[in-house]
Amino acid sequence: MGEKTMVSVAELGRMVESIFMRAGFNAQQADAITRIITAAERDGAKSHGVYRIEGCLRTLAAGKVSPDARPELIDEGSAVIRVAADGGFSPAAFDLGLPALAARAEKLGLAALVINDCVHYSALWPEVEALTARGLAGLAMCPSYATVAPAGGAQPLLGTNPLAFGWPRAEGAAYVFDFATSAVARGEIELLARANEPLPEGWALDADGRATTDAEAGLSGALLPFGGHKGSAISTMIELLAGVMIGDLTSRDALDELGTLSLAPKHGELILAFSPSRFAAGRPGDPLARAEVLFEAILGQGARLPGQRRFAARARSEAEGIALDADELALLDRFQREGLAALG
Amino acid sequence: MGEKTMVSVAELGRMVESIFMRAGFNAQQADAITRIITAAERDGAKSHGVYRIEGCLRTLAAGKVSPDARPELIDEGSAVIRVAADGGFSPAAFDLGLPALAARAEKLGLAALVINDCVHYSALWPEVEALTARGLAGLAMCPSYATVAPAGGAQPLLGTNPLAFGWPRAEGAAYVFDFATSAVARGEIELLARANEPLPEGWALDADGRATTDAEAGLSGALLPFGGHKGSAISTMIELLAGVMIGDLTSRDALDELGTLSLAPKHGELILAFSPSRFAAGRPGDPLARAEVLFEAILGQGARLPGQRRFAARARSEAEGIALDADELALLDRFQREGLAALG
Repeated sequence: MGEKTMVSVAELGRMVESIFMRAGFNAQQADAITRIITAAERDGAKSHGVYRIEGCLRTLAAGKVSPDARPELIDEGSAVIRVAADGGFSPAAFDLGLPALAARAEKLGLAALVINDCVHYSALWPEVEALTARGLAGLAMCPSYATVAPAGGAQPLLGTNPLAFGWPRAEGAAYVFDFATSAVARGEIELLARANEPLPEGWALDADGRATTDAEAGLSGALLPFGGHKGSAISTMIELLAGVMIGDLTSRDALDELGTLSLAPKHGELILAFSPSRFAAGRPGDPLARAEVLFEAILGQGARLPGQRRFAARARSEAEGIALDADELALLDRFQREGLAALG
Repeated sequence: MGEKTMVSVAELGRMVESIFMRAGFNAQQADAITRIITAAERDGAKSHGVYRIEGCLRTLAAGKVSPDARPELIDEGSAVIRVAADGGFSPAAFDLGLPALAARAEKLGLAALVINDCVHYSALWPEVEALTARGLAGLAMCPSYATVAPAGGAQPLLGTNPLAFGWPRAEGAAYVFDFATSAVARGEIELLARANEPLPEGWALDADGRATTDAEAGLSGALLPFGGHKGSAISTMIELLAGVMIGDLTSRDALDELGTLSLAPKHGELILAFSPSRFAAGRPGDPLARAEVLFEAILGQGARLPGQRRFAARARSEAEGIALDADELALLDRFQREGLAALG
């Protein structure tokens, strides 16, 4: 990777924002995307950081995301708040819905935010972390595009369908997990294919629906869900709740519409927010304090909490800046100067 | 197993109810328990059927369940409805909360039922199926008692923490899954220990926290979660949401209180209800029709829907009756005649 240059979180944010403004996104979209990409890079989540900029711009160049989207909040006072994302990327839609979602969860104990018609390139932990920062627990999910076969099946149908959960903690970082419900991300198979290395068993099927350890065969076949039929059932639940129930695309619909795996897909997203203080009202014990007893018991036996590595990277980045290599800096520079023309 | 005797679902229900009445449960408790045990036996879910009667009665004999519990509904008009189960078994508490939960989900789009202080011996599919029968989707979860080590850990801390989901279908049986978030149920390890057979890898740790394929060693150690760190994270989420958040016991608390794995544990339960028509309002497509397209695509590639086997058994039982063997009939007869004295 060669020499690294330290860049402050704020400085990276300015560079990323200028790229998205230069590319033609309105300020609302550019600001929201920038915060999410910068946060990923800050947290050492490289796969969702600077690396994603090119994909976002290619999606724009292909006309598959609206740079001037104006998300609209639809709130009829129920437990379900909706944001019509207007074909923009999801972060601006979430930012618009978050205050209403949090207020409704505090009022009713439980509320949902539905985001419709959003283009997705990001992880789901920013959503659940934003809820934990307000003292709420959050559960977020969305489809993707059809690359995963259901357990016992043979062809791609489900998406990698991420599931994220967050629980607030009075001190330090929240308890947050965010993972694909496929055995692995497709990118991991691409890396092994390039390196000409075999896949572990249980990751993929070939184009004829047979188990394979050949990475190229897996790429032309299907990924498998994590955890066998249980993971497959959870992935199917995500298609149902965060696809058909919210009146938005399933992973198959999304791929049919986009026609490629190389651009960001458009679909919906579902985020549930829970107020622990409302749920625990009238019962013995403080839920946040009791959760700490559980976390201590996990850590005390040598296991880790999800997100620990990311939060450690965040602390380092905030203290010392983010280490970018020469390629990353060159890419940031090129996109700032040339805009979409830099896509070649 | 020898000769089988065919018994109608209604006849089995009368036998089971008379056992619970004879044992001293009030009519509300006996009726609710009976319906759940009979439904499991009808569905071929033997592990939750007639087999469970003895455990229920032993829990009563040990003073660990209240036979005269009167569940109380606490409803302040929010999205969270609560039933105080009063130390009885969970089914009567759920029956009391179900109409309010369904009505609130229809009104607000989304609602939760919290059950506190209930003793648990049953599966969770009856809860989510009851919601699907009302046109709602349901997600249910509860802790258990500490028998499962977190991924990367060494000692029992989490429960087998079941997760159940149901989606309504206009015709035929609902889409329903219900599974433990442990790699297997503890009972499966007990069976292999009795048969002196080895465990598959990934099921259990020994008492020193090392991976083991020795069934006896696994029983004195810990089960492992399904799906590695992902399943472990989901199980931890269940401890948080359906334990500490609802002001009820975690799996460790439940085991500390009960002191044994041979009786039914007391803790809480969380059930979320979603109204697909409310969530999809104003959006293109009918969610129930669109879900059928997904189910057809799963079945069309040779995969199965969860619950298919159970629903096939149900159809057979309703047409032909339930096949009970001589031991099961003798047990039913003995408990009807002798009550708790039959426990020996």
